[in-house]
This record gives sequence, C-alpha cells and structure tokens, in this order.
Amino acid sequence: MDRIPILKLGKFLLVTIQVDMHDRLALALQDDLMAQITTHRARGVLIDISALDIVDSFIGRMLANIAGTARILDAATVVVGMQPSVAITLVELGLSLPGVQTALNIDRGMELLRAAGETEGTVRDGREVS
Amino acid sequence: MDRIPILKLGKFLLVTIQVDMHDRLALALQDDLMAQITTHRARGVLIDISALDIVDSFIGRMLANIAGTARILDAATVVVGMQPSVAITLVELGLSLPGVQTALNIDRGMELLRAAGETEGTVRDGREVS
Repeated sequence: MDRIPILKLGKFLLVTIQVDMHDRLALALQDDLMAQITTHRARGVLIDISALDIVDSFIGRMLANIAGTARILDAATVVVGMQPSVAITLVELGLSLPGVQTALNIDRGMELLRAAGETEGTVRDGREVS
Repeated sequence: MDRIPILKLGKFLLVTIQVDMHDRLALALQDDLMAQITTHRARGVLIDISALDIVDSFIGRMLANIAGTARILDAATVVVGMQPSVAITLVELGLSLPGVQTALNIDRGMELLRAAGETEGTVRDGREVS
C-alpha cells in the first residue's frame, strides 16, 4: 500500500482511511487530494475515519492541513464516521481539530457540503439554485 | 486492521478494499456486508477495488460470493474502479467474475444501481418513476 485511493462522488471526493498513516503516506494523500480537487473541480472532501481506533496529534495535524489546503482551493472538508471513543480521547487530550468540520456519517457529511455549496451559490428570483 | 469499513451512501453501501485480503478478513467483510444490507435495507453494494494491483482467484471468488449472497437479499453488486492492468490479467487468466457487474467509477456504478432500481420500480402513466 503506497497510496490511499480517492473516490469521486459527484462534486465531492471521498477518502477512507483504513491503514496506519505514516509520514510519506500522509504527504502522498495530501498531494493526491489537492491534484484531484483541481482535476475534478471538486467542491468538497469527505474523509472517513470510521476504521481508526486512535487519532493522535499526527493524524489530527494531517486532517487540519488537508482542510486548510483544500479551503484555499475552494473545497470544504468534512471528517465523518469518527468513533465515539476517538472523540472522547480527542477532547481529553485537548486536540480540537481546528478548522475541520465533522459529521456523523457520509450522508450527513454530504448534506453539510451541499448546504455549504448552496449558501455560496447564486440566488435567482429569491429561490436558491441547487 | 480486522474489519473493512462499510459506508452508507443513501440507499447503497460502499466498500473500499485497500488492504491485502486474507480468509478471515474476507469472511468478516461478507458477514458485515450482509448484516448492513439487512439493517439499512440497502438496494445496492458498490465495491471499489481501485487500490488493488492484483485480483487473483481468491478475490474473484470473494466478489462472486458477495454478489451472489447480496442478490438473494435483493441488493445488486457493482465492482468499480478496476485498474486496466487488472482487467487484462483477469481475461488472460480466464477469470470472468461470474454474476458480478462492473463500472468504471463510483458515479457510473451508482447510475447503474439507480437504473436497475428504476427498472424494478413502479411505472406510472407510461413514465418512469425516478
């Protein structure tokens, strides 16, 4: 495994993190993701971490970096599927995932991204254009 | 890694295979998937294998088993993201993935599943109900 696959879901990109992240893999993921945002003109990135039992400061920083870089490329980032125990540990450790939005699952994450897109989108005749 | 995460995407389930499959992992995936189809009343399963460089007879049999069992539970299975080299090798080896539908990517796979659902669905006034 030298690459984490990035899936295109309509206007959004989806990444499922299943393996232990190390420096090089995290950097490769970041590079790939930014390239794909540009190629597909993606408006949002969903990162699923339901397979992760631990989110340490390294993963936290990676998520924050991805969200920050994606934002500059005009794409929102939502982290989905966090296990309750991971959320508890994050709060206990004082890691707040700055700048990273979270949602319970993919469906809710996509709703969040769509809602964000609509707010930014054009409004014609007083109606929102989806 | 003892479990492959299964993501819910609306009426469908999505599995991304990123790690080397072994017997126990394949069985666990099959069990989890069937449980989730029942829980979420899913109409389709998307299996992304874009991260796999090799699809041998073991993986091929696992995909066929999943598709067969899902069909009995009234859910269609589509394998997406197969690398061109994997497709070439499959044909050369004479492995035809019986009963398994394939699509280029997730978007096309979801179209295929939606189209299958519509064909089975109600037709009113001669128009298809989406």
